[in-house]
Amino acid sequence: VVLQIIVPFKLEGAKSRLSPALSTEERRLFALAMLHDVLQEVSGIGQVTILSRPGLKGPYPNLDPNIIESDLGLNDAINSLLEDRQKEGLQSDLLVVMSDLSLITRKDVEGIMSTPGDVVLSPGRGGGTNMILVRESRFRTCYRGLSFLKHRDLASELGLEVGIYASYRSGCDIDEPDDLAEVLIHGHGRAKMLLEKLGFELCEDKRGKYARRLP
Amino acid sequence: VVLQIIVPFKLEGAKSRLSPALSTEERRLFALAMLHDVLQEVSGIGQVTILSRPGLKGPYPNLDPNIIESDLGLNDAINSLLEDRQKEGLQSDLLVVMSDLSLITRKDVEGIMSTPGDVVLSPGRGGGTNMILVRESRFRTCYRGLSFLKHRDLASELGLEVGIYASYRSGCDIDEPDDLAEVLIHGHGRAKMLLEKLGFELCEDKRGKYARRLP
Repeated sequence: VVLQIIVPFKLEGAKSRLSPALSTEERRLFALAMLHDVLQEVSGIGQVTILSRPGLKGPYPNLDPNIIESDLGLNDAINSLLEDRQKEGLQSDLLVVMSDLSLITRKDVEGIMSTPGDVVLSPGRGGGTNMILVRESRFRTCYRGLSFLKHRDLASELGLEVGIYASYRSGCDIDEPDDLAEVLIHGHGRAKMLLEKLGFELCEDKRGKYARRLP
Repeated sequence: VVLQIIVPFKLEGAKSRLSPALSTEERRLFALAMLHDVLQEVSGIGQVTILSRPGLKGPYPNLDPNIIESDLGLNDAINSLLEDRQKEGLQSDLLVVMSDLSLITRKDVEGIMSTPGDVVLSPGRGGGTNMILVRESRFRTCYRGLSFLKHRDLASELGLEVGIYASYRSGCDIDEPDDLAEVLIHGHGRAKMLLEKLGFELCEDKRGKYARRLP
């Protein structure tokens, strides 16, 4: 029984909230770089599958991920996997890891796996859910808005025990220009290298602390 | 040899960056509530001292903290303690915990204490340092701006081994209106109760996810 790891990924219109800092092409490259960092950390721990909109050319063949292409929205796509598992009575765990968790390390994957619970939630800053470990396939995801509370409440309604794995690194999804500083400070992979190549550097001034681009 | 825990606290002009969300008096109450939550979690683990500007009336006598009053700025005040320890050859550890870490739990204090290193840093979102464990009193603090990198680099220059304890909860200092949502979602103490009493609730809409005040 192998852990199945799902990494949802969207290349089209990727990371639009970063548009004040990065061009469309740069955002695509950055999204792919973060995907690489995530795949790197989760590979070898389970059977890794990228869940993508149709058209993704298999990236990072050396990390050997499966690809599932789906036209469905994020929740529908994951929940159809959960429904299938429920019907088949599959006992293996399903771990959903967001593709923009550029800071995570293998320790975070091990951390969530060693946390008890029918469903283990790893919160993201601002009420999100950055990783979910589903050990009971009756569970369904509801990624949107304050999803951490929705996931916690849904699990309770279903009579499932909820575990929480809260980590600095898995709590940092990289969505907005201010998040780029986190990659420069705490990153370790291709996303950090790409930002440095694009001329980003850390800066502190009256506005605060942030990543700025060299002129 | 007892662990010494220093909690720096400033009541005058406390939490000014929260002024878009809270009045001056509310910010004072909120700062005291967060201080309570921190004292609650650290008490019993070491000898707890509030490092305050002069004039603080001893709060929370049930938690029995010492109070050191000092006119010095944060770094000068802590570094004079470190200098004294260095002169006296004191071998016990010094842990500095910011007073606005309303989400931390005892697990975070135990987590940093069990992390190896002459100096152990616990990063705050945006390049800050929310907890520092000093096991070698040659170290000096430099809280300001990107302090996490400054502390890391200073330790290296001094030939000290640096450990890092990165935690979601100790990574959340509550500085700005957007941080209030974290207290409502993940909080467990008086700070959360106070926000609820003041009429704050969680909200999600086109702006995103945040804590808003009931009209």
